[in-house]
Amino acid sequence: MSDDKPTPTAEATGANAMWGGRFASGPDAIMEAINASIGFDKRLAAQDVAGSRAHAAMLAAQGIITDEDRDQIDAGLLTVLSEIDAGTFRFSTALEDIHMNVENRLRELIGPAAGRLHTARSRNDQVALDFRMWVRDQADAAVTGLTALIEALLGQAEAGADLPMPGFTHLQTAQPVTWGHHMMAYVEMFARDRSRFADARARMNECPLGAAALAGTGFPLDRHMTAKALGFDRPTANSLDTVADRDFALEFLAAASITGTHLSRFAEELVIWSSAQFRFVRLSDRFSTGSSIMPQKRNPDAAELVRAKVGRITGAFVGLSTVMKGLAMAYSKDMQEDKEQAFDAADSLMLALAAMEGMVRDMLPQAQNLRAAAASGFSTATDLADWLVREAGLPFRDAHHVVGALVKLAEDTHRDLPDLSLVEMQAVNPAITADVFNVLTVEASVASRTSYGGTAPANVRAQAAAWRERLAAEKTA
Amino acid sequence: MSDDKPTPTAEATGANAMWGGRFASGPDAIMEAINASIGFDKRLAAQDVAGSRAHAAMLAAQGIITDEDRDQIDAGLLTVLSEIDAGTFRFSTALEDIHMNVENRLRELIGPAAGRLHTARSRNDQVALDFRMWVRDQADAAVTGLTALIEALLGQAEAGADLPMPGFTHLQTAQPVTWGHHMMAYVEMFARDRSRFADARARMNECPLGAAALAGTGFPLDRHMTAKALGFDRPTANSLDTVADRDFALEFLAAASITGTHLSRFAEELVIWSSAQFRFVRLSDRFSTGSSIMPQKRNPDAAELVRAKVGRITGAFVGLSTVMKGLAMAYSKDMQEDKEQAFDAADSLMLALAAMEGMVRDMLPQAQNLRAAAASGFSTATDLADWLVREAGLPFRDAHHVVGALVKLAEDTHRDLPDLSLVEMQAVNPAITADVFNVLTVEASVASRTSYGGTAPANVRAQAAAWRERLAAEKTA
Amino acid sequence: MSDDKPTPTAEATGANAMWGGRFASGPDAIMEAINASIGFDKRLAAQDVAGSRAHAAMLAAQGIITDEDRDQIDAGLLTVLSEIDAGTFRFSTALEDIHMNVENRLRELIGPAAGRLHTARSRNDQVALDFRMWVRDQADAAVTGLTALIEALLGQAEAGADLPMPGFTHLQTAQPVTWGHHMMAYVEMFARDRSRFADARARMNECPLGAAALAGTGFPLDRHMTAKALGFDRPTANSLDTVADRDFALEFLAAASITGTHLSRFAEELVIWSSAQFRFVRLSDRFSTGSSIMPQKRNPDAAELVRAKVGRITGAFVGLSTVMKGLAMAYSKDMQEDKEQAFDAADSLMLALAAMEGMVRDMLPQAQNLRAAAASGFSTATDLADWLVREAGLPFRDAHHVVGALVKLAEDTHRDLPDLSLVEMQAVNPAITADVFNVLTVEASVASRTSYGGTAPANVRAQAAAWRERLAAEKTA
Amino acid sequence: MSDDKPTPTAEATGANAMWGGRFASGPDAIMEAINASIGFDKRLAAQDVAGSRAHAAMLAAQGIITDEDRDQIDAGLLTVLSEIDAGTFRFSTALEDIHMNVENRLRELIGPAAGRLHTARSRNDQVALDFRMWVRDQADAAVTGLTALIEALLGQAEAGADLPMPGFTHLQTAQPVTWGHHMMAYVEMFARDRSRFADARARMNECPLGAAALAGTGFPLDRHMTAKALGFDRPTANSLDTVADRDFALEFLAAASITGTHLSRFAEELVIWSSAQFRFVRLSDRFSTGSSIMPQKRNPDAAELVRAKVGRITGAFVGLSTVMKGLAMAYSKDMQEDKEQAFDAADSLMLALAAMEGMVRDMLPQAQNLRAAAASGFSTATDLADWLVREAGLPFRDAHHVVGALVKLAEDTHRDLPDLSLVEMQAVNPAITADVFNVLTVEASVASRTSYGGTAPANVRAQAAAWRERLAAEKTA
Repeated sequence: MSDDKPTPTAEATGANAMWGGRFASGPDAIMEAINASIGFDKRLAAQDVAGSRAHAAMLAAQGIITDEDRDQIDAGLLTVLSEIDAGTFRFSTALEDIHMNVENRLRELIGPAAGRLHTARSRNDQVALDFRMWVRDQADAAVTGLTALIEALLGQAEAGADLPMPGFTHLQTAQPVTWGHHMMAYVEMFARDRSRFADARARMNECPLGAAALAGTGFPLDRHMTAKALGFDRPTANSLDTVADRDFALEFLAAASITGTHLSRFAEELVIWSSAQFRFVRLSDRFSTGSSIMPQKRNPDAAELVRAKVGRITGAFVGLSTVMKGLAMAYSKDMQEDKEQAFDAADSLMLALAAMEGMVRDMLPQAQNLRAAAASGFSTATDLADWLVREAGLPFRDAHHVVGALVKLAEDTHRDLPDLSLVEMQAVNPAITADVFNVLTVEASVASRTSYGGTAPANVRAQAAAWRERLAAEKTA
Repeated sequence: MSDDKPTPTAEATGANAMWGGRFASGPDAIMEAINASIGFDKRLAAQDVAGSRAHAAMLAAQGIITDEDRDQIDAGLLTVLSEIDAGTFRFSTALEDIHMNVENRLRELIGPAAGRLHTARSRNDQVALDFRMWVRDQADAAVTGLTALIEALLGQAEAGADLPMPGFTHLQTAQPVTWGHHMMAYVEMFARDRSRFADARARMNECPLGAAALAGTGFPLDRHMTAKALGFDRPTANSLDTVADRDFALEFLAAASITGTHLSRFAEELVIWSSAQFRFVRLSDRFSTGSSIMPQKRNPDAAELVRAKVGRITGAFVGLSTVMKGLAMAYSKDMQEDKEQAFDAADSLMLALAAMEGMVRDMLPQAQNLRAAAASGFSTATDLADWLVREAGLPFRDAHHVVGALVKLAEDTHRDLPDLSLVEMQAVNPAITADVFNVLTVEASVASRTSYGGTAPANVRAQAAAWRERLAAEKTA
Repeated sequence: MSDDKPTPTAEATGANAMWGGRFASGPDAIMEAINASIGFDKRLAAQDVAGSRAHAAMLAAQGIITDEDRDQIDAGLLTVLSEIDAGTFRFSTALEDIHMNVENRLRELIGPAAGRLHTARSRNDQVALDFRMWVRDQADAAVTGLTALIEALLGQAEAGADLPMPGFTHLQTAQPVTWGHHMMAYVEMFARDRSRFADARARMNECPLGAAALAGTGFPLDRHMTAKALGFDRPTANSLDTVADRDFALEFLAAASITGTHLSRFAEELVIWSSAQFRFVRLSDRFSTGSSIMPQKRNPDAAELVRAKVGRITGAFVGLSTVMKGLAMAYSKDMQEDKEQAFDAADSLMLALAAMEGMVRDMLPQAQNLRAAAASGFSTATDLADWLVREAGLPFRDAHHVVGALVKLAEDTHRDLPDLSLVEMQAVNPAITADVFNVLTVEASVASRTSYGGTAPANVRAQAAAWRERLAAEKTA
Repeated sequence: MSDDKPTPTAEATGANAMWGGRFASGPDAIMEAINASIGFDKRLAAQDVAGSRAHAAMLAAQGIITDEDRDQIDAGLLTVLSEIDAGTFRFSTALEDIHMNVENRLRELIGPAAGRLHTARSRNDQVALDFRMWVRDQADAAVTGLTALIEALLGQAEAGADLPMPGFTHLQTAQPVTWGHHMMAYVEMFARDRSRFADARARMNECPLGAAALAGTGFPLDRHMTAKALGFDRPTANSLDTVADRDFALEFLAAASITGTHLSRFAEELVIWSSAQFRFVRLSDRFSTGSSIMPQKRNPDAAELVRAKVGRITGAFVGLSTVMKGLAMAYSKDMQEDKEQAFDAADSLMLALAAMEGMVRDMLPQAQNLRAAAASGFSTATDLADWLVREAGLPFRDAHHVVGALVKLAEDTHRDLPDLSLVEMQAVNPAITADVFNVLTVEASVASRTSYGGTAPANVRAQAAAWRERLAAEKTA
């Protein structure tokens, strides 16, 4: 996709024919296989046509081409796009890339005026434009996908704001929390992901068009006009950087990788929660696969695949980072290896987001199992200790000794803390009153965690409501 | 660094002694080696003390501890910090981590009041706080280092705004640019890096303190007070997310990796430019190493090391991403593997930024060689073609044929384009006038690229001035 | 691709219909998109058919199916394969994967006997078999490609065994070496890569077939028979490991990544050597691209693309490692994410190897430039120092001082070492004799490096001959 | 660590003083910080001394230095090593690296003879030697650690060869297997890892010494003698490759990464199995941490840390791959970034192996829970289907329908398959006889899986015995 090449000619049978006059031999099959990008960069067709239309409009506005040329070019490009959309466009590997495929067809359609479209432009700024617009669209799609997922999580959080479940550390029961609180934890994660894509989008939103091959041009362009027409905040400020830069793609991949990590964590929980040993959640048939011979088996395939997707996304970040490492300026052909990585990672991310959203909308928390698990394992031991400090005025350390003794008593007699009698408790420490039983249930425990960000149902409802409001405000904005 | 453990006691000889009463055997050497983090997390000492001071102040303000306790705790923590700063603090591996080392010493210094510091707190939110504050400091340091590097580049750009050099694509001479324009390309890259760290900082600037073990707490905390005291914008909104999240570190590492890629590209250029074949730049003695036996040899060691640093930074991102992949909530011990990666990457980044800044400040562009290289290789062939289109009204394609013929003529006679006579040129195309020689010099070529972002010296000066202004405005802000 | 599912039925319209009887709803579009693998695993068609044929033959030999069934199955499978080869096979996404597509078509062709093929087999061992055979083929292809590249390098080494060129450290001229010696350095690297693929192949060459779903089977299989029929050394030894293991793919990717690193290093040299400043090599038209307007420009596109390919290969290793990290046994659906990574990496590797081989066969070292660069920069200063130690008996340190003084004298008078007169030399140290001039030329320098592995032309020839012999011996073996 | 530098002099106060005579300024703090490697490469002290001793012995044997010099050097080097071992050696950052630190001290100890040690050697081949020997040692250590882990697993496998547990796919109960079979799956994985390290060791076992700076040397070295003395199979064959190559480290890191993946999978299982919901295993106190207040809590810290370690190991592979990508030959300073990555990864691997071995030796399978889980969930449904095919002659598809109906009946009546009466079964299919109950227990199921590699206890015992024999044979070999 290097430039400083003439525009393709109608008589040429391929891109090589265009620049190859002085070459003794044509590129052979290997070179064509490694060099041509049309196999994948045809995904940029819509962006390429949009960029060319904006360029032609600006060239005419600046008097560099005539209005007649502009109109011909514009009509021709619309025809090209409709052919591509209709699937009737014939892509040619010999024409190497999407830019030359489009331009060659344009020439067939409108003749010599097509040649004037490439004035003050190069394939270097053209591909930078197309790819940047594509990545910008994906950043928007990621925001949309994350918003839908957040809304699905809010639904679960609202419905399960009071539903107790065990809060784990080390996958060991630690303290009771609520289903709603657990869902809201993911809302926070995916909301950060969302803002990361928004930041990346704002940073990349500068228009490359007009950087030309690498040095800018002497034609009297109006780069602000094309930038505005294509939805950019401004043109890029340095032509060398413009054709050499791919960090918009790297930043997108980094944000996608972190999102992928969050998805993998939630997916892991869904897999574990779906096991016969946990039975914390029932995934819908829609996102499970079964077995006619083992009807009890509900394989959480979608969750497993979502868990795995982060691999190729992080791999894509590593791949493109490796490509860009140590690359001298400005454009080098190495950079052609930027697209397939980004395409695959973006597709994987969007699919994983959609699948996760679907799973979250459909899934049914198994309330009885969650509550039972939350209530077992002396999960309110810290509540008891806190009560002793707060109500009975015991120093922390003494409170811990008391609780340790009570837990041991309960464990030895195969009971849990609320099952001990007041007499038994007072035998360990006489300061204990009947009031203590108010903190030993899971409901009391979660209700008490009212510190900002804590698991108390009222908190969960307030947070969910605040998010609903924020998202609604965005939509009306 | 898991929690739901009591506070350490003075009598205990080690952390295990504190929770280990019911264990038949103590952790052996392997467990201590894999489990203890004090070997590296002592770097968080200042953050740990600051966090504890803020927590104590808030506990007193809320009436959870007395003002006397708070004063004792505060004085004791300052003593601990001064001991650490003075190098007299004795770190203990048996006490596992920085939190328990500090707390144990505090108890030695002030007695039982130390135990009240841990009220409504857990090591889970404590380590999240300490590490987040450390990463926040590093984001600030990255911004500072990038700013200094940008200023060094601006100096080079201003001094070399008119100095021609070859603009390369594929490491082949394409068109002339200026030294200043090349420097400004890196200004753009490092400025994006800077804004990436700023965005990351803003996103991470929420205070974890008060999330407690994972569920929040029933003590009447004022989380907004501690958040404000520690320079955070607000407290975190979900306690589970707070102790489970490390994406502030991931985002820092991603931003550092992209910065490292930019550094590697510039360093690569410095290495190539320092070769005997290029001689485009002379690095200072300060950042080169030599050989007493081969005095002509000036190895660009610092540039090579800067080029390499991106490796371990990207490696750290992969490392931490791998750790976090598929981790069920909330806190898991795996997350202890977050710090060494981030420490090493941040140190590598800061060192690479400082070395690059030093090299840029010291380096001397070799004007004669740069100009000569810019003028060779028919580098103004596109200027000639553009002239033919613009001034002689030739269609693009015809212009290219004319230029091709003239280049061939020059090449065959071992000359460059400006060396051809007008007569020779007119023999190829009679529309050419003497005026054409005005665009065939490198000076004319670069001066003509006046489109926004182009290499024209006036553009370069304007961009540099705009950056100077922006940076100055920031400082007075 | 999970198993413990019944064999597909003719009446079913899709895979879901087969296991989905008890599901209230069918998988929707998202689930189909994320779940189906036929879009990529159809590349395993040949392996799938070969595995099924071997399985059927064994089932018949063991009396588990009849010979008639076996013959029907065998004929049917050959028909399926020929349909796939001819491009007339209709792949169905609803049938999810290659295994069910093949089996369903087999049923259409031969009826109920098709159902007996799946006896004592599961999709879990089936996919492990197919993918392993595919990777094994790629390991063989890598060996073939590397061998061809080594042979191309040997050609260059033999032709340029005497041709001096600068040996660089830090991209600074250090000592003269020969073109042949430089080529042989890459022979060593690629030979190690070759042996790495060979080792990987040997390690993976155990047959998964017969592990069934995960536990083995009670049917009286002869796993040694199928293993032998499919070219494996033996069956795998543990059924759980067999369906859970993908380290054959990881090891292949690791070997490919290291090879990719070697390719990137050589490609980088070709790019630098092709620059106007170096002009060390002329790549063929076949592997360059040019510009009609700048005929001097020969962009080393193929070399740049080869340099970049390591990115996606290392990315694939990271991707699959991430997928496998922390995956509980035995088969999980996550593992479906193993193939696309490996397919892409293998394709990239083979293409890069072929392109590099082509470039090496075609490229022309520019002898004059190479020799001149080798002779410049006081490149024989260490030869002079060695001569003083060896012949004049000076201690190393004194020798260095003498050489330093002589280099300074030459540098100050714009000459190189051989241009100094004997008188000038003796003024610095009287022990120098006219004999010294024998070591100051690049030819003398390289000829003197006769230590094993050194750059002396005789060494290079001997090493090249030894490799020719080794490769010839392999072929006749 | 670049070379073509003179040997250090006694009067020099630092490395820079040695080559810096003509530099106007000394390296400042930044340069020293980025350039010096002594902070980490002092780990190579033993290798450096061993290499120097072998080099001196060879130089004397070849008559290049005198026997007196050799004896002085040898004695001096032993003194240096004993000082380092005793902790009395003073490392100097100004002397940059381990080589110059050792050599400088040697000069202090023995005077001028020290200078002759560096004859026909360079820091380039010296560091290649030291690091390669260090990596070779680590490959051996990995083999040792893996062997110990395999032996621990064999102990578990032998003790639990008959103990049923659920075999999972998708973390859903699929079919019963045995504890021993599950352990043997990991034996296979770790045995492959072991052979991977052994292959890497064999491939790297060529001696770099004598490659000198990059071109070999004219001194009459006997590289085979030093190779043999240092335990290498042969000297390296190409001097350029020798100083430029680090793929021995890359291959080690790749093997370590794959091992790390296996460790993470087993660690994940231990974490899940330790949960209150599974209770499949009890880890020893030694490798767990607890809570005085929640005595039931046994956090599997060691397992979590082992699970995480793969992160930094894979990160190190990515890091070094990135460093080496696109590096022109021969030695570049970038390569100094090879060591810390490898040091950290090797330390992490050895610690993780030791911790895992300890956990495996100590852990107690919870037989009752394992058996109960294996027997639940209709885990023998496939055994029933196989019985119908084999004994009642039903076609596969019909067998599946029968089983589906029986499972539904059992599920609806809250029973498992063995709890159905013969009458109930015959109502579904009259071909069923009382004989069927022989295959519906987990014991019958696992016993029946006698195909090679299947889970039958006899198989497990045979495999374990075979491994015992193999390991014993190695030890006596």
